Amino acid sequence: MISPQKNIKIKHLTIIGVGLIGGSFARALRQAGMVEHISGCGRSSENLQKALDLGVIDDFFLDIKDAVKNADLIFIATPVGSFQQILSQIKNAMKNGAIITDAGSTKFSVIEAAQSVFNEIPENFVPGHPIAGTENSGVEASFSELYQNHRVILTPVEQTSAAAVELVSQLWTSIGAQVVIMEARHHDLVLAATSHLPHLLAFSLVNTLTTLDEKQEIFENAAGGFRDFTRIASSDPSMWQDICLANKNALLEHLDLFTQDLQKLRTALEQGDGDFLKETFVRAKQSRDHLVENSIEKNSE
Amino acid sequence: MISPQKNIKIKHLTIIGVGLIGGSFARALRQAGMVEHISGCGRSSENLQKALDLGVIDDFFLDIKDAVKNADLIFIATPVGSFQQILSQIKNAMKNGAIITDAGSTKFSVIEAAQSVFNEIPENFVPGHPIAGTENSGVEASFSELYQNHRVILTPVEQTSAAAVELVSQLWTSIGAQVVIMEARHHDLVLAATSHLPHLLAFSLVNTLTTLDEKQEIFENAAGGFRDFTRIASSDPSMWQDICLANKNALLEHLDLFTQDLQKLRTALEQGDGDFLKETFVRAKQSRDHLVENSIEKNSE
Repeated sequence: MISPQKNIKIKHLTIIGVGLIGGSFARALRQAGMVEHISGCGRSSENLQKALDLGVIDDFFLDIKDAVKNADLIFIATPVGSFQQILSQIKNAMKNGAIITDAGSTKFSVIEAAQSVFNEIPENFVPGHPIAGTENSGVEASFSELYQNHRVILTPVEQTSAAAVELVSQLWTSIGAQVVIMEARHHDLVLAATSHLPHLLAFSLVNTLTTLDEKQEIFENAAGGFRDFTRIASSDPSMWQDICLANKNALLEHLDLFTQDLQKLRTALEQGDGDFLKETFVRAKQSRDHLVENSIEKNSE
Repeated sequence: MISPQKNIKIKHLTIIGVGLIGGSFARALRQAGMVEHISGCGRSSENLQKALDLGVIDDFFLDIKDAVKNADLIFIATPVGSFQQILSQIKNAMKNGAIITDAGSTKFSVIEAAQSVFNEIPENFVPGHPIAGTENSGVEASFSELYQNHRVILTPVEQTSAAAVELVSQLWTSIGAQVVIMEARHHDLVLAATSHLPHLLAFSLVNTLTTLDEKQEIFENAAGGFRDFTRIASSDPSMWQDICLANKNALLEHLDLFTQDLQKLRTALEQGDGDFLKETFVRAKQSRDHLVENSIEKNSE
């Protein structure tokens, strides 16, 4: 294990997918003085030009191979469905010893993609997931404070080099994030409950309401409670399609538990069992109040 | 129909239930100079003393009959389950010609309660529902701006006096609210979709998560999206027990539609049908983005 360097500085960072997440990572590292040169890579030259104009990146490439060939650190911030293809293109183009990390919202699927591309997970690949974001997308929405006081979960595998984990941890810490190490499958189970299922429910509820005759009036009479509850239904559909499919099993598991409990609540409601309703609401309120009191993250996801 | 008075002033307002809703109504009307004297009524002298100390009310009574006997306007802001009992106590104690209005979250149940107490709905009873609030309860949480730019739905019945509706409308308008007239059953259907169902889902989800082994980690890793989605699960359990029971039929109807659509989404997820997921998410995002763009209410519910 290489001992941690006190004054690390990344000479060349390449961001694949310069949107809210990738753009904010670039902005924050630059502000923290942790990086010398930042290249951007993506499918849309229009977006990359915007990132360049905003000073988020120093240059850009549409071809991943060109983008990564000089990179010391590669940060993948695209929807998780694209990882296999991206890793395949990186594989023979990147420098020996370059570190790869990512911001994918599911971790087991990302590790599987790496396994299938590299046969064995490269020791310099550090799977990661910053628990931060907003419902807005695109490099225009990126800002350097996004990760401050937010958690970043890293899910190294057995062969991941401790030095690579250490370096990636230091980068996140330098921009105000709190790093937590977790096993990938466990990450996926926890995130299915706390993020993926709520997104599915929010999308599903708003979709159902759009099918009603009273649709217009429903939205006209929606207040802040509804707006907050459905904020995550304004998230990027492609990204969430990928996340749901990539974390299908854990998501189905939690969805089924939720549905079973909801049916119990439905039965209680139909039977006019106020005590059951109230007990459920009290339990929920207590946990939710406790969460808010103990939360380290005051900003939005 | 009495023509609207330009400079109305309520001599004596009695608030039954001096919490967030009742307290904010009192504060706002006082600030707008629309009221001379405000009495409070409730079950807890401690809370009423607090309201008195905060200057929200001028005096208080624990006995409803004493509280309403001199009132020109009676505002009921208690959980809807208490309405029948409250109206029974008001019935023979109130002044002739006094106007009664309320803030109950369901309207058909309130009208039914009035019908059963008075045999015929009194012409001076104006059922109402301000679409405003926060997840906090109690008079300490009340503030005079709560209703600014928020909707208030009034649901008069056939025999309701137009003058009474006009007076209550003017009061709400004077404190910055936007008054909408709606049929009570329709109100309940719309609110079931936009408020009652989301509350039920938020309570239910948080309750399910509290039953999981990973409970601790789940809450530790929750970010802003989860916090917003579950904010309404911090609402008052007794109040929501009452609302769910009072609007049972409309709520069950929407809950079943939601559950059916959620099951379709579940099937698509299980079968890996990404197109179906994405189409649903896109439809939801479009409606939700549209809602935010067109919303008149920027504050929380």
